[in-house]
Amino acid sequence: MSKYQALKQECYEANMQLPELGLVIFTFGNVSAVDRENGVFAIKPSGVPYEKLKVEDIVIVDFDNNVVEGTMRPSSDTKTHAYLYKHFPHIGGVCHTHSTYAVAWAQAGKDIPIMGTTHADHLTADIPCLPELSDAAIQGDYEHETGRLIVDTFLTEGLDPEEVEMALVKNHGPFTWGKSAEKAVYNSAVLEAVGHMAQLTLNINPETPTLKQTLKEKHYYRKHGKNAYYGQ
Amino acid sequence: MSKYQALKQECYEANMQLPELGLVIFTFGNVSAVDRENGVFAIKPSGVPYEKLKVEDIVIVDFDNNVVEGTMRPSSDTKTHAYLYKHFPHIGGVCHTHSTYAVAWAQAGKDIPIMGTTHADHLTADIPCLPELSDAAIQGDYEHETGRLIVDTFLTEGLDPEEVEMALVKNHGPFTWGKSAEKAVYNSAVLEAVGHMAQLTLNINPETPTLKQTLKEKHYYRKHGKNAYYGQ
Amino acid sequence: MSKYQALKQECYEANMQLPELGLVIFTFGNVSAVDRENGVFAIKPSGVPYEKLKVEDIVIVDFDNNVVEGTMRPSSDTKTHAYLYKHFPHIGGVCHTHSTYAVAWAQAGKDIPIMGTTHADHLTADIPCLPELSDAAIQGDYEHETGRLIVDTFLTEGLDPEEVEMALVKNHGPFTWGKSAEKAVYNSAVLEAVGHMAQLTLNINPETPTLKQTLKEKHYYRKHGKNAYYGQ
Amino acid sequence: MSKYQALKQECYEANMQLPELGLVIFTFGNVSAVDRENGVFAIKPSGVPYEKLKVEDIVIVDFDNNVVEGTMRPSSDTKTHAYLYKHFPHIGGVCHTHSTYAVAWAQAGKDIPIMGTTHADHLTADIPCLPELSDAAIQGDYEHETGRLIVDTFLTEGLDPEEVEMALVKNHGPFTWGKSAEKAVYNSAVLEAVGHMAQLTLNINPETPTLKQTLKEKHYYRKHGKNAYYGQ
Repeated sequence: MSKYQALKQECYEANMQLPELGLVIFTFGNVSAVDRENGVFAIKPSGVPYEKLKVEDIVIVDFDNNVVEGTMRPSSDTKTHAYLYKHFPHIGGVCHTHSTYAVAWAQAGKDIPIMGTTHADHLTADIPCLPELSDAAIQGDYEHETGRLIVDTFLTEGLDPEEVEMALVKNHGPFTWGKSAEKAVYNSAVLEAVGHMAQLTLNINPETPTLKQTLKEKHYYRKHGKNAYYGQ
Repeated sequence: MSKYQALKQECYEANMQLPELGLVIFTFGNVSAVDRENGVFAIKPSGVPYEKLKVEDIVIVDFDNNVVEGTMRPSSDTKTHAYLYKHFPHIGGVCHTHSTYAVAWAQAGKDIPIMGTTHADHLTADIPCLPELSDAAIQGDYEHETGRLIVDTFLTEGLDPEEVEMALVKNHGPFTWGKSAEKAVYNSAVLEAVGHMAQLTLNINPETPTLKQTLKEKHYYRKHGKNAYYGQ
Repeated sequence: MSKYQALKQECYEANMQLPELGLVIFTFGNVSAVDRENGVFAIKPSGVPYEKLKVEDIVIVDFDNNVVEGTMRPSSDTKTHAYLYKHFPHIGGVCHTHSTYAVAWAQAGKDIPIMGTTHADHLTADIPCLPELSDAAIQGDYEHETGRLIVDTFLTEGLDPEEVEMALVKNHGPFTWGKSAEKAVYNSAVLEAVGHMAQLTLNINPETPTLKQTLKEKHYYRKHGKNAYYGQ
Repeated sequence: MSKYQALKQECYEANMQLPELGLVIFTFGNVSAVDRENGVFAIKPSGVPYEKLKVEDIVIVDFDNNVVEGTMRPSSDTKTHAYLYKHFPHIGGVCHTHSTYAVAWAQAGKDIPIMGTTHADHLTADIPCLPELSDAAIQGDYEHETGRLIVDTFLTEGLDPEEVEMALVKNHGPFTWGKSAEKAVYNSAVLEAVGHMAQLTLNINPETPTLKQTLKEKHYYRKHGKNAYYGQ
């Protein structure tokens, strides 16, 4: 029995939530779960349909993208996951999908503006759409560069990856993360719902302003931090 | 056996309808059911996912927000429910969701205009979007103030909470109520459907006028009042 | 055993297709099936939720709206069905829903323009949105007047109810019919799909023209008339 | 046992995916699978609902549209399939649907512009919307002419049918193909998803430019050609 059995199981279960939540069709997404102690993460194999995925297909990879265990090729987005684990030291899982509304915002090249409390329950910033990757980055080590662009943008914009657990890769789609793989998937579903609400809101009222500061903070701190009073 | 067993069961069943009707994901909603004789209501515990919710998790709270029975923390929106029960003496249940179209209208800050008979079958007024809460109210006893704003707005606007069983809390989402918890949930589904139709109607014809008085009244009084001839 | 048992069964099954096809929630629709020989039709009882509907609840009504068999009150829209059976002598079933896209067009007060072959496979005309009912008609024998307005509009506009098996009652929603109750329900689903496609088409290209005559006729006569070559 | 049993089974299974993937209602679509060695293809019979379709109903047809085996009439679109098999020698399956978003673009008469990597993962060109068929072609051998227009447009536009495995027949809907019937159906689902994303993208930002060349090529060649590194 692999020492990574529990990690693979966690990764497998988080991946299987994607089709259940309506976030992927076919092979359009991947989730990973990290084991910080051993410096590895478990990730979906590349191009395997969810209905055929098995726990033993999950691949164990280290932060330098070496396969540690597994017979299948890991997700083509593996280097993006690795980069995020290396530079966001507190995250436990990463999720990538091509969910419809998140992709639409990423293709439109727009941040998803914070206009309501569904958004503020999860983060107080607009959901950032990254700047364009350079041609050199695209033609070079593309997936590594994608991870780097996420991390660099968070640094430049002063965004805290423990609050803002999601980003839109321009023209591509969402990456989300969290303290566990399950939370990363949860964040992908939240992002999709918030993106849908935002598209409709601007359709109904193109002049909708963003949320005022007091309301942003009220909702965020109902659920986060030492004075949170949401949940058990 | 608790004396509130039937009340808890009613509350539980009404809550479980929310995911079935597509009105919530994860923990994004809560329903309560009142027992007027004992001056208490049963409400969903805070932050518990619907697929894990059990009847015995339901919390019994009085109108001053004291937990009367139950080991879990009640919904973070409990004070809004309590305020509504106190000031709308004829209602039996309250429901709150973050359903997509209702939230979009709430974020857009617009009343949902009455443009058809699906709407008029349930109420003859536009579905009101409340004015903004003041910063003081947000930073103070927020959920209590939210309830107060609903009640005050109904007074100011001359709306009858027995006819208009729903309101949009601006930038937040819908609260609905009714003679029972089941009816409150029903109203949330009606509001979502009417909000979807209204968004599409204005997309097709931005100049759509509101319904004429005769048609509003015809449909409302087909289903309500002493001359109603709808139903058994 | 009732002599109308088979008719009730047909009516029941057609009604039960409505929630399956996503055309209704709760009690928002009704289907009837006619027995021309006996001059009666079977119709859903008023206000009964689909999940509780039983074959024996179906009500038998004559063309003058008298209940011939059944203990429940027939649909509040019964008089509209009766009027259609009386004046469209070749139809076998009638269906009414509040499906989302059809209602949106009805609320917008617009005919659904024929822009593609999905539409032309079923009819060569725009799907008509009726003119407004007068206040007198609304306050008078409303459901009877609704039927009359459908029939009168078809006469005025020269529409053939055997080709155009559907109409939008302005501000209300769709009525459809066909050679059987099942076909009437089929037409409600077609109308909903065509209405969705039309809304999106104009969203993508507001200048989309209607279909040219040759293509309308090609598709309609592939499926209808003596030279039809679609189906078995 | 028919020598075409396996071919019929492949065709049947691919057809049955259409309702599962939400791409058809009723009889609105058809899939075929080719046997190049014997110069025949298996295709859905015309007008048979998916829930009643059986393997033995599948019809075997040669490239000149002669029925080789089967008692039912083949799909009314058979000649389009035959024309594609004849002129696109490397394809193994063809699929036609009336899926909502693909039809909306076809009715709008617009190519679906390439704006993201979901699109570029599958093809680097815009998804072409064909020019209008002439009245003579519509009134003549319509389904044959539809096939011809697809093939001629690909020649004129310099599109490679092994890369661009899909086209929108103007005012009608999508035809897709691929190395197998299953792949043709997959492409129909991809087209629908990409069409949905594109409609939303332009709704959010009407000025969205198309994807830059480096990103188009990066994503396409991650999954295709000798340097592909996606999948197993």
